[in-house]
Amino acid sequence: MVAYGEFRQGYDKDTADTRLVFYGLRYILEHYVARRWTLQDVELADRFFAGHRVPGHTPFPYPRDLFLRFIRENDGYMPVRLQALPEGSVVHAHVPTFQLTAEAPYAPLCTYLETLLTHVWYPTTVATLSRRCKELIAAAFDRSVDGGRTNPLLNSRLHDFGFRGCTCVEQSVLGGVAHLLNFDGTDTLSAAYYAQFALNEGRPVGESIPATEHSVMTSWPSERQAISNMISHFGEGVFATVMDSYDYQRALDEVVPAVVAELQEQGGFWVLRPDSGDPTDAVLAALRAAERAFGADVNGKGFKVPRGVGVIQGDGIDYHNIRHILEAVMEAGYSVQAVAFGMGGGLLQRLSRDTLSLATKLSHIVYADGTAVDTMKAPKTGPEKASLPGVLAVKRVNGIPTAFPAELVAPEEDMLQVVYDKRPVPVQWENFDELRQRVEREWAALPPTALVLAPELAAKRAAVAERLGVRWQVQG
Amino acid sequence: MVAYGEFRQGYDKDTADTRLVFYGLRYILEHYVARRWTLQDVELADRFFAGHRVPGHTPFPYPRDLFLRFIRENDGYMPVRLQALPEGSVVHAHVPTFQLTAEAPYAPLCTYLETLLTHVWYPTTVATLSRRCKELIAAAFDRSVDGGRTNPLLNSRLHDFGFRGCTCVEQSVLGGVAHLLNFDGTDTLSAAYYAQFALNEGRPVGESIPATEHSVMTSWPSERQAISNMISHFGEGVFATVMDSYDYQRALDEVVPAVVAELQEQGGFWVLRPDSGDPTDAVLAALRAAERAFGADVNGKGFKVPRGVGVIQGDGIDYHNIRHILEAVMEAGYSVQAVAFGMGGGLLQRLSRDTLSLATKLSHIVYADGTAVDTMKAPKTGPEKASLPGVLAVKRVNGIPTAFPAELVAPEEDMLQVVYDKRPVPVQWENFDELRQRVEREWAALPPTALVLAPELAAKRAAVAERLGVRWQVQG
Repeated sequence: MVAYGEFRQGYDKDTADTRLVFYGLRYILEHYVARRWTLQDVELADRFFAGHRVPGHTPFPYPRDLFLRFIRENDGYMPVRLQALPEGSVVHAHVPTFQLTAEAPYAPLCTYLETLLTHVWYPTTVATLSRRCKELIAAAFDRSVDGGRTNPLLNSRLHDFGFRGCTCVEQSVLGGVAHLLNFDGTDTLSAAYYAQFALNEGRPVGESIPATEHSVMTSWPSERQAISNMISHFGEGVFATVMDSYDYQRALDEVVPAVVAELQEQGGFWVLRPDSGDPTDAVLAALRAAERAFGADVNGKGFKVPRGVGVIQGDGIDYHNIRHILEAVMEAGYSVQAVAFGMGGGLLQRLSRDTLSLATKLSHIVYADGTAVDTMKAPKTGPEKASLPGVLAVKRVNGIPTAFPAELVAPEEDMLQVVYDKRPVPVQWENFDELRQRVEREWAALPPTALVLAPELAAKRAAVAERLGVRWQVQG
Repeated sequence: MVAYGEFRQGYDKDTADTRLVFYGLRYILEHYVARRWTLQDVELADRFFAGHRVPGHTPFPYPRDLFLRFIRENDGYMPVRLQALPEGSVVHAHVPTFQLTAEAPYAPLCTYLETLLTHVWYPTTVATLSRRCKELIAAAFDRSVDGGRTNPLLNSRLHDFGFRGCTCVEQSVLGGVAHLLNFDGTDTLSAAYYAQFALNEGRPVGESIPATEHSVMTSWPSERQAISNMISHFGEGVFATVMDSYDYQRALDEVVPAVVAELQEQGGFWVLRPDSGDPTDAVLAALRAAERAFGADVNGKGFKVPRGVGVIQGDGIDYHNIRHILEAVMEAGYSVQAVAFGMGGGLLQRLSRDTLSLATKLSHIVYADGTAVDTMKAPKTGPEKASLPGVLAVKRVNGIPTAFPAELVAPEEDMLQVVYDKRPVPVQWENFDELRQRVEREWAALPPTALVLAPELAAKRAAVAERLGVRWQVQG
C-alpha cells in the first residue's frame, strides 16, 4: 500500500497564492517513526488494548502480530519506506509532500503511521503563515524603506510572542522553529535554543531585546522611573517598554517627552509597545509621539523615520491586520521600518489542520494476488477535492515542483527523497542557516500559483475516475 | 514577589456559566519546574544568551547569577513556592488557581516561570469545553433517554477524534487526557495510554470500537463488501463504518437495507458515520435509514430508538452544533441515545488562551527595605478586568470556592495546596478514577455562576485601586 500527504489549499483558502513552506517531517521521523520497538512495548500495548474497548464487546484490534514480526525480523524498526520533500521546500498546494509505502504483510502499517505524519501540518502551517507575513512586510519595505526588502531590518519585523499561548513546550519548539525559518525575532526561547543546538551546530538562530512587561512597570513607583531604569541599564542598545500600564495616551504625551535627554545621552534605540486598544490607532499614536518628542528624518523614499524610537505592536496581531497597519503607517507618511509586530497566539496557536487542509490519502494497492490498482478519493463534486492516484514523484518543470506518476521520473530526479527505508537511512539534513537560505531562495523563485499536475498524471487521474464511475470535467 | 493565575471568563465568554475544570498543573510541575539545574545547563544558557541579541547591541539579560546560586545553595532546584488548586477542581472564573512565591534575591524567578505555568490554560480549557459538551448531552439524556443522565451510555457520547489535528504528540496527551476526565470515548491513543499507565496505576481509562476510515472502504471492490467484512469480523459487538466514500444517501438507501440479515445474525451494534455535508441533516438521514431498515422501539420517555444501529457525527462538530443536533434529533422524535459525537480539531485544537482568558498577574511585593505592597492590574475601564491584590487563598463559602486575602485563611483550609516548596514536596495526587469522580461531583455541586470574592478581598481591592488613583464603582 502507498499513501501520500498533500496540502489541499493555500494559506487560509487563498487561491491567488498557493505556495507553502514544507517543514517539520524530520522531527516526527526522528522522534516517533525511526524508533526500535521492543517486546516490552508490545506487552504494554497488549495491556492497553485489552482494556481499550467497550466493556463486554468486541476487542479493539491492533496489529499485534505485525509488531512481533518486525521486532523479530527487522530489529524492531517499522518496515516501511518514507519519502519526503527536503525540509524547507517551497511548493504549491496539491504537490505531494511525503509518501509512505508498506509492503506485503506490513501493508496495514501504511495507514497506521498516518496520524503521526499528519502532525507535519503544524510546522508547515506556521512556516507558511510567517512567510506570508514576511511577504506583506517586504512589499511595504519596498515602498517605504531605503534599500527595500534587502534592508536587514526586515528580518526582525515579526517577533514571535507565542510561547505562552502554546498548548505545551513541544508545540512551542515546533512552531517557534518554523517561524525562525523566516525571521530572527523570537521570545520563544525553547525554539531558539533547540534551533541553535539541535539544528545549527551551536550557532545562534534567534534574537531578542531587553523588554519590560506590565509587572516590571508597576513594580516601580512610577512609569517614568521604570523607563528611566531601562534607559540607564539598556539605553546604549535596543530595548522596549510596554506603555499601557496606566494610561497609554498619557504615557505617550507626558512620559515620552520627559526622557528625551536621558535616551539621547545613551544613544540607543527605544521601542514603544502598546498592548491594548485598536492596533492601528495604537501604532500611529506611538509614531506621532515619537516624532513630536525626538524628531524625524525623511528617508530616500520620502517617508518619515522617527529618530531613535520605534514601535512594536504585539497585541491582537494576525495576517490581515498586519496589512492594514502597514498601509495606515505609510498613509500617515511614516516608513514601515519604524514598526515591528509581535504575534503570539495568532502565529503559533490560532491555526488548524484546515488552514492548509492537509490530508493523507491512499493512492496505490497491490493485492495478495499481485493485482496492482491505483486508487484515490474521488468525490462526485469535482476534481478539486480529489486526491492523486498511483505511486507519485515530484520533479521540477520550468522550476515548478510538479507531480508525476513515479514511473516517469528517475529516482535521482525525484524531489521525494527517501528519508527512512525499513530502518533509519543516512540523510544529509541541511543545517538551519542552509534551511533559511533554501526558503528565501525557493519562495522568491516560485510564482504565487502554478499548475502542478503533469499531463500524464492528470490523464491517469481521469482514467481512474472513469474506472470508479465518477464523471467530471477535468481541466488541467 | 507573589504572582497568581486566574481564568478571567467562562467558556467562550459565557457569563451565564463561568465554571471551569482546573487541570494540568501537575504535568507542568513534574516535567518542567521540579527539575534540577546543573552547571552544564548554565554553560549552555551562557552560549545561548550570548548569541540571542541584536547584533552589536545590548546583551539579552538572563538571571545567570541566580541560577548559579541555587545550583550551589539549593541542589539545583528553583527556590520558589508553588501552590495550586487540586487537579480536577471545579471553580468559577476569577478564582485564583495557582500562586507562585519567590523570596529575596530569587524574586525575579517569580515571573520567570510564568510562561511555563501559563500552559495550564490548555488542559483546563479542553477539560472545560468537554465538560460543557457533556452538560448539553446530559440535559438531552434527561429529556429523551431512559434513566436520563444516569444512563451509562452518556460517558461514550463524545468521542475524541483530535489526535491528528493536534500540533504534536505532547499536546495530544495533555488535551486528550483532559477530555478523558469527562468521557470514556477516545481515539487519541497517546492520551489513553498515558492516562492508564502514568495516572491510573495501569487501569484502563479510555475506550473505543473497531471502525473503518475511507481508505479501508475504498480498498474493497464495493462498499457493501467492506461493510460485510466488518460485520463478519466485529458484528457481535459495537463497530462503526464511515458511509460517505462514494454517495452517502445512496449508501443509506441501498447498502444499509442490504445487510440487515447479516447484522441481525451477529447480534451486535452498528454505528453509521457520516463524514460530510450538513451535520444535522446527516445525523437525521442516518437515523431514518436505520429505522426504515431495522425498525425502532419507543422508550419510556416516548422517543424512538432504532434497533441495533446508531450514528456518530464526527465531522465539523463544535459546542454550538452539538446543541443544535440534539434538538433536531429529539424534534424528529428520536432519543439522543442513538447519537454520538466525534470531535477532533474542535476539541483539541480550535482553542486558545483567550477561550477562558488565563492571565498570571503580580499581586504582592516586599521591597529590599522590607516594605510590603499589595499590587494589581487596575485598568481605568473597570474592576471586571482588574486582578486581585495581595497574597491570596481560596476557601469554600457555602460550598463555593471563594478568594480571600491569605491572612484570613488557615493554611489547612486553603484550597491552594503547596505542591512545590523550593524543591519537590510529597503530594497525594489522586489517581485518574478519583479525578473523574472529583470532576463529576464538584461540577454538579456548583451553581453555574456565583460571587467568588470574599468581602474582605473586595474591600482590599477597592483600597488598592484608590491608592493607585483608579476610581471605579465596586459592586461585589
